[in-house]
Amino acid sequence: MPETRPPRLSGVMETSLYVADLDRAAAFYRDLFGLETFVQDRRMAALGLPGGAVLLLFAAGATDAPSPAPASSPGGTVIPAHGGSGALHLCFAVPWGELAAWERYLAGAGIAVESRVRWPRGGSSVYFHDPDGHSIELATPGLWPNA
Amino acid sequence: MPETRPPRLSGVMETSLYVADLDRAAAFYRDLFGLETFVQDRRMAALGLPGGAVLLLFAAGATDAPSPAPASSPGGTVIPAHGGSGALHLCFAVPWGELAAWERYLAGAGIAVESRVRWPRGGSSVYFHDPDGHSIELATPGLWPNA
Repeated sequence: MPETRPPRLSGVMETSLYVADLDRAAAFYRDLFGLETFVQDRRMAALGLPGGAVLLLFAAGATDAPSPAPASSPGGTVIPAHGGSGALHLCFAVPWGELAAWERYLAGAGIAVESRVRWPRGGSSVYFHDPDGHSIELATPGLWPNA
Repeated sequence: MPETRPPRLSGVMETSLYVADLDRAAAFYRDLFGLETFVQDRRMAALGLPGGAVLLLFAAGATDAPSPAPASSPGGTVIPAHGGSGALHLCFAVPWGELAAWERYLAGAGIAVESRVRWPRGGSSVYFHDPDGHSIELATPGLWPNA
């Protein structure tokens, strides 16, 4: 019998950025956020985020063709091709009351805050750029109705 | 005193895709996953995901210049510019045991599964494309060490 209603979804598992220099980007996010590196090779880095998600950093052009699936996979399957460019946007949640500490920490790390926004529902954001020019936001809860 | 260690990070709040037809993309994700639309205008749609994150869909080119911050913000601040292109990659987590139901549901919705991968640590994925050609993955827990 066909499924006519969506099965359950848990949330975001992986969000991706495409970067010019993989070592530089992986070191930036690892050190800035204190993340664990799960995988790093010439094609990609995978950094574990709190809450069970993973930040994937892909070397520009490295995934333009499908990749072989791991040996654990049934024969013949692939990891499909993908590849983005431009300045992407990603927002990380930080706990209530931690945004001022983040501002001091960014300043100490030599990262310029580009903008600060206070949202109508509540919640505040600071914006900065990563080394590839991606627009990164840190925001406190309250910005959206579900968090 | 400067902050020398990273303050706390909660996880991913927003992950973004850039789309050619905002109405089409917003309807696709809303209907496929049964998501609530928090905001939809000519520039973007924001869809609430389980787990407190938000999927942002941006009309291609609509955020190439900074946007005015909301009136709740101190004067003069902006939402910084960003804008991506290409086929991006995003992975959604689904509960253990729900992947077969997702396969039946995708088939019923006329969405072709492009590949299936079984991961060495555990966890399985199915891949498909959204209407903009973004590479979307649904994966069960176990793929990464943190989930």
